[in-house]
Amino acid sequence: MDKITLTLKEAYQLAFDTLTAHGISAHQADAIAVTVMRAEGDECAAHGLFRIPFYLAALANKHVDPSAEPVINHAAPGILRVDAKFGYAPYALKLGIPPLIKAARSQGIAVLCVNNAYHIAGLWPEVEAITDADLVGFAFTNALPAVAPVGGTKALFGTNPMAFGWPRKNAPPVVFDQASSVVSKGDVQLHKRDNKAIPEGWAVGPDGLSTTDPAAAIAGALLPFGGHKGSSIALMVELLVGALCGDLFSFEVAVRDPGTTAPCGGELLIAIDPARCAGGQTRADQDAHAEVLFAQMRAQEGVRLPSEHRYAARQRTATEGIKIPASLHETLQAYLSGS
Amino acid sequence: MDKITLTLKEAYQLAFDTLTAHGISAHQADAIAVTVMRAEGDECAAHGLFRIPFYLAALANKHVDPSAEPVINHAAPGILRVDAKFGYAPYALKLGIPPLIKAARSQGIAVLCVNNAYHIAGLWPEVEAITDADLVGFAFTNALPAVAPVGGTKALFGTNPMAFGWPRKNAPPVVFDQASSVVSKGDVQLHKRDNKAIPEGWAVGPDGLSTTDPAAAIAGALLPFGGHKGSSIALMVELLVGALCGDLFSFEVAVRDPGTTAPCGGELLIAIDPARCAGGQTRADQDAHAEVLFAQMRAQEGVRLPSEHRYAARQRTATEGIKIPASLHETLQAYLSGS
Repeated sequence: MDKITLTLKEAYQLAFDTLTAHGISAHQADAIAVTVMRAEGDECAAHGLFRIPFYLAALANKHVDPSAEPVINHAAPGILRVDAKFGYAPYALKLGIPPLIKAARSQGIAVLCVNNAYHIAGLWPEVEAITDADLVGFAFTNALPAVAPVGGTKALFGTNPMAFGWPRKNAPPVVFDQASSVVSKGDVQLHKRDNKAIPEGWAVGPDGLSTTDPAAAIAGALLPFGGHKGSSIALMVELLVGALCGDLFSFEVAVRDPGTTAPCGGELLIAIDPARCAGGQTRADQDAHAEVLFAQMRAQEGVRLPSEHRYAARQRTATEGIKIPASLHETLQAYLSGS
Repeated sequence: MDKITLTLKEAYQLAFDTLTAHGISAHQADAIAVTVMRAEGDECAAHGLFRIPFYLAALANKHVDPSAEPVINHAAPGILRVDAKFGYAPYALKLGIPPLIKAARSQGIAVLCVNNAYHIAGLWPEVEAITDADLVGFAFTNALPAVAPVGGTKALFGTNPMAFGWPRKNAPPVVFDQASSVVSKGDVQLHKRDNKAIPEGWAVGPDGLSTTDPAAAIAGALLPFGGHKGSSIALMVELLVGALCGDLFSFEVAVRDPGTTAPCGGELLIAIDPARCAGGQTRADQDAHAEVLFAQMRAQEGVRLPSEHRYAARQRTATEGIKIPASLHETLQAYLSGS
């Protein structure tokens, strides 16, 4: 496949220019472009420039407000809410995370409920924003119905990722961000784009039978990871976002906006201040203690920390830039000039 | 296998009498006996009367205090700590959960760090204590090293369960409580007791190769569920308990108390008040909304809610009593008379 090399700054600018050319406000476009650039920098193509046409497709939705200014509400000492007002998620997160961090430092633990946000992307950037403040972070979100509950054959849950981050003093944080499905829908979409079959065990087709065709998988249902355990986590995420935050369940997104590729919904973040949990220990003791565990993991050949692959990519792309398919670059140029 | 039938009250009394006969204080023994009785009532044998000899084995440990009175510390508006003072976990939880609930109602979200607690059992009773207060609950604990990190072959993580509960107005809560391993160590122990082989894929032996021998699995390592995703969750649990709560990692328990079957460590609980997160919705709206999701799940043939099996058992045992192996009953009688 032909590839085009871009610097991270060029990736940001291409995203920003394409988004603003289609009427998305500078505030909104800047936050989206940062998200896209960071995803490309970490070589997570599914949340990178590939996603720009999806952000633009959301403009066709009657609910979307491409110039929305999110509204923050401090609902309780430990509860922040940010209403994205039917704008895109990245800007709502950018505004909501600083007060979440402040509340977690003051209370020891705090939660941020994000509502009415289009296109929540990978969760690790917001978890890293929390760990950058030396806090422990969780993030949960649902999306469009894509995953069958264990025992069933019809898409009901979203791919429902949960992410977790542990801050480290002298190293990037330990962060995982994982779908409740065997793979993310983005992975299946990339297989479809590249005309590649998916492995057995990822999904069932619309007939409820196992499939290797990515299009059938998208029309059917992905399977939860680890059987009933992954299904339970997917259910937990639906409840945290759809019921606790008072937003939509994944299946309701599809009912409200049939056929959309631009889901609008909620996200829940939790931040905990480890310094306030430490009891007789200092924060430095805690940090040193965690490093002992990481060293034990690394002592086993073949074991790595969850985020190492992304950090290696990040280091590489910072100097070498990113590579995107030439066909994607053409698509984006067409969006830019055809605005 | 010969079985003995007991009422729940008889199961409680047998546990309480056996524990106090060996010098465990009435406060501690009562809380343990309630935990054991509830596990039997839910037909979770691994945390039931089968576990009494393990509680007694802990008495041989030089750190254990069978008459400990836990100490509670309100470390921050949203952070409770309970130091079990090297007594057993159930009594520390009994004392720590009411202030956790109070803090969650006042702050919107709160965390309870439990330290220095022997023999943390199934997590669903504490999660149900939280959901009984109409709060959303999480619980995490580690234990003895039993699970290899993905890519490795040596036991490092505990089976590291996480539990979650969603309160319902007109039905028992939706609760799951699941090990980060394919199965719990208790399941393997029951196979060993009953001289039954374990399925392929549960564990590796001490040689790092797949095994169907439960004794080899206990000497070797269980495998995380869902590959790297379950391994990430096991790592998260280690960090939440060992590093955040300032307690021991699973492998450190084994270093401090070599050969013990009575792990002493920490547990982390989180409680969130959904009413404080509800935004424009009432608590009744949230409850009704969650029921819509549960109805969608049930509409798929073969799908059930995570806790239904336990609640069916609970209803049955409340009237019919419980059945335990005659050999276990004999063992407990010997412990009782041999004290």
